[in-house]
Amino acid sequence: MTTAPVDVDTARRDYAALVERGLSLDITRGKPSPRQLDLSADLLTLPNGEYKAEDGTDTRNYGGLKGLTELRRIFAGALQVPVDQLLAAGNSSLELMHDAVVQALLSTLPGGERRWADEPRIAMLCPVPGYDRHFALAERFGIELIQVPMTDEGPDMDVVERLVAEDAGIKGIWCVPKYSNPTGVTFSDEVARRLAAMPTAAPDFRIFWDNAYAVHHLTDTEAEVADILALCAEAGNGDRAFVFGSTSKITLAGAGVGFFGASAANIAWWSGVLAKRTIGPDKVNQLRHAMFLKDADGVRAHMRKHAEIIAPKFAAVDRILTEELGDSGLATWTKPTGGYFVSLTVPEGTAKEIVRLAKEAGVALTPAGATHPYGDDPKDATIRIAPTFPVLEEVEEAVRALVVCLRLAVAQTA
Amino acid sequence: MTTAPVDVDTARRDYAALVERGLSLDITRGKPSPRQLDLSADLLTLPNGEYKAEDGTDTRNYGGLKGLTELRRIFAGALQVPVDQLLAAGNSSLELMHDAVVQALLSTLPGGERRWADEPRIAMLCPVPGYDRHFALAERFGIELIQVPMTDEGPDMDVVERLVAEDAGIKGIWCVPKYSNPTGVTFSDEVARRLAAMPTAAPDFRIFWDNAYAVHHLTDTEAEVADILALCAEAGNGDRAFVFGSTSKITLAGAGVGFFGASAANIAWWSGVLAKRTIGPDKVNQLRHAMFLKDADGVRAHMRKHAEIIAPKFAAVDRILTEELGDSGLATWTKPTGGYFVSLTVPEGTAKEIVRLAKEAGVALTPAGATHPYGDDPKDATIRIAPTFPVLEEVEEAVRALVVCLRLAVAQTA
Repeated sequence: MTTAPVDVDTARRDYAALVERGLSLDITRGKPSPRQLDLSADLLTLPNGEYKAEDGTDTRNYGGLKGLTELRRIFAGALQVPVDQLLAAGNSSLELMHDAVVQALLSTLPGGERRWADEPRIAMLCPVPGYDRHFALAERFGIELIQVPMTDEGPDMDVVERLVAEDAGIKGIWCVPKYSNPTGVTFSDEVARRLAAMPTAAPDFRIFWDNAYAVHHLTDTEAEVADILALCAEAGNGDRAFVFGSTSKITLAGAGVGFFGASAANIAWWSGVLAKRTIGPDKVNQLRHAMFLKDADGVRAHMRKHAEIIAPKFAAVDRILTEELGDSGLATWTKPTGGYFVSLTVPEGTAKEIVRLAKEAGVALTPAGATHPYGDDPKDATIRIAPTFPVLEEVEEAVRALVVCLRLAVAQTA
Repeated sequence: MTTAPVDVDTARRDYAALVERGLSLDITRGKPSPRQLDLSADLLTLPNGEYKAEDGTDTRNYGGLKGLTELRRIFAGALQVPVDQLLAAGNSSLELMHDAVVQALLSTLPGGERRWADEPRIAMLCPVPGYDRHFALAERFGIELIQVPMTDEGPDMDVVERLVAEDAGIKGIWCVPKYSNPTGVTFSDEVARRLAAMPTAAPDFRIFWDNAYAVHHLTDTEAEVADILALCAEAGNGDRAFVFGSTSKITLAGAGVGFFGASAANIAWWSGVLAKRTIGPDKVNQLRHAMFLKDADGVRAHMRKHAEIIAPKFAAVDRILTEELGDSGLATWTKPTGGYFVSLTVPEGTAKEIVRLAKEAGVALTPAGATHPYGDDPKDATIRIAPTFPVLEEVEEAVRALVVCLRLAVAQTA
């Protein structure tokens, strides 16, 4: 990008004034704010003496590996998974993704020839910028992380198709198909179709379809993604996709319910290995959630209340960046219509320095590079902004501070 | 044992009469009864608007890998683990045991030379009769299961010491140290000391110390087990023990809290691998439990109420077996003072047939052999009775029916 010159002295003065203020702000993680959590206050009193599921199951006792049907039914539509193939589990979808990798390492997947642990080498494709926790959990098992560029429509499919066709060591791809973390991009139907249909050298290739923001709209225009399970089945690759979702950013981030969906063969595989691990999920919490959310319309109405709280924060980020940097050419940023993040692209080689300067000024940002495998953004140009947790005034202050740090970092390297 | 003769015709007539009654009873699994679950009815209304932990943590949000301190403090004494080394996790200790095996397979343990997955062969010692789910989760990973006889004081330590000293492939031993499943045996201090101190060929040998019944007394005499972590540390094998516990049979079987305790080095190892899997456990449920149980005395008082409900069922099992079989020499059985099971020893070669006959008469028993690795009791002589779930009258009927089946099975083989 063409950048307007930044006056070093002005930048230094502004930064010194910023440090002087002794701020203590944090826009690092995609956490719901207390006001958002308050929307689910009723969960803290439910199930209020009730304990029977609709089929008569005593939710207080052991059993029920698949989770409560009434809750799975509520989310089957949003996650685009038939109720019978959708499992409701514990309090985290991240742990379901972790366990999917673990079980693939230790048990041959449907379509696979051997356990991943017995392969000479395993790799996963990582669209960048992407979600650091996806990358970290795979890296921890020695899985090689291969970067693929994100476009405005999802991962660059020309690159993806070429890599997976050639390399049998590539066993999967991380995807956040809707309101992607951190770009806000929603995968186009064409990208989804190509993911489902592309030839892969690995017979047990899996799409890790983390639909974390399935119902997390910021506007009245609700983004839609293609039905990946149906597309895979149509393409003759029925077992290719693992679908993940959770209520962490719908109800309570620490006490929600995670979901896993896949083909019937994958679900049979998963249930088989899972049955050795647990006698069933916390069904009382699932009952609580089913009573509270009621149905898909209940979820939609509830998510509108979230949007009322957080949309102004996203608007503030965009407004301040536009006011301060709009004509400067110093940065570009995403304008997401859903999800939890804004991705800010700064001049190459300045992201780390900006984050460092911000930290010294009392503003915590996600570490530069976190959006890339191994924490290494080769261009050092991506900063993830997470505006949901702080109150509006703090978001505004943090973004103004970020601009001051950006100007100084650019001026120093000029 | 010397058995009194059983008249075949009488046995057949009695069994025919039993089948005629068309019973439908189930004493298969160690599940709490609805009346026991009712004792924790308040959990279904808690935390009732409260959501702050004692340190100010908002339990509704992400974070807090170790679990809530106030809950860990309540159970540190019962589980004999220092609070700092005790983690409160999800709704199941079985999944913690499973994940301990998984993580040992995929990450080198403190003291280990390589990941278990990279060993040519892995085996675990299984005291028998023992807990089928322990055996099944290890078997599923291709771990060899080696039987060790149980004595009245725990596993036969002469056998254990000889095996682990010779065989570096033996990586662990399953233990239920108090009110063992299914024998009710509590390990003696000497057994615990020998387990902690014995030389093992494997440098990363682990005791899987499943203290599932730590506070589950049936009488006023509370069995005590030695402090395994302290004994291991004293013997210079500080990292040898993994301690597990849960509230599943204290509060709600499907919606309780599991615990993991170990040495500081093990906890650092565990936390490191766990941090890639989750952003934290369900802290709201942990808060609920801390508010409900309050402290160790609260747990003790609560467990007395459980005993009031289930002790009469255990007494009925013993009374009926004594009345029906006391002098016959046809069977022996345990008289547990805690835990969830009675172990019935029948003449060799009859257990499977008894279970089959019972099933045909409408009485479901745990499959014969389930108490042994691979579901194979070489003597076919052990039947596990789980009297907690059915109401008293059903327990009585089921045990009387079991006696009828036992007599017929013996008569048929005589």
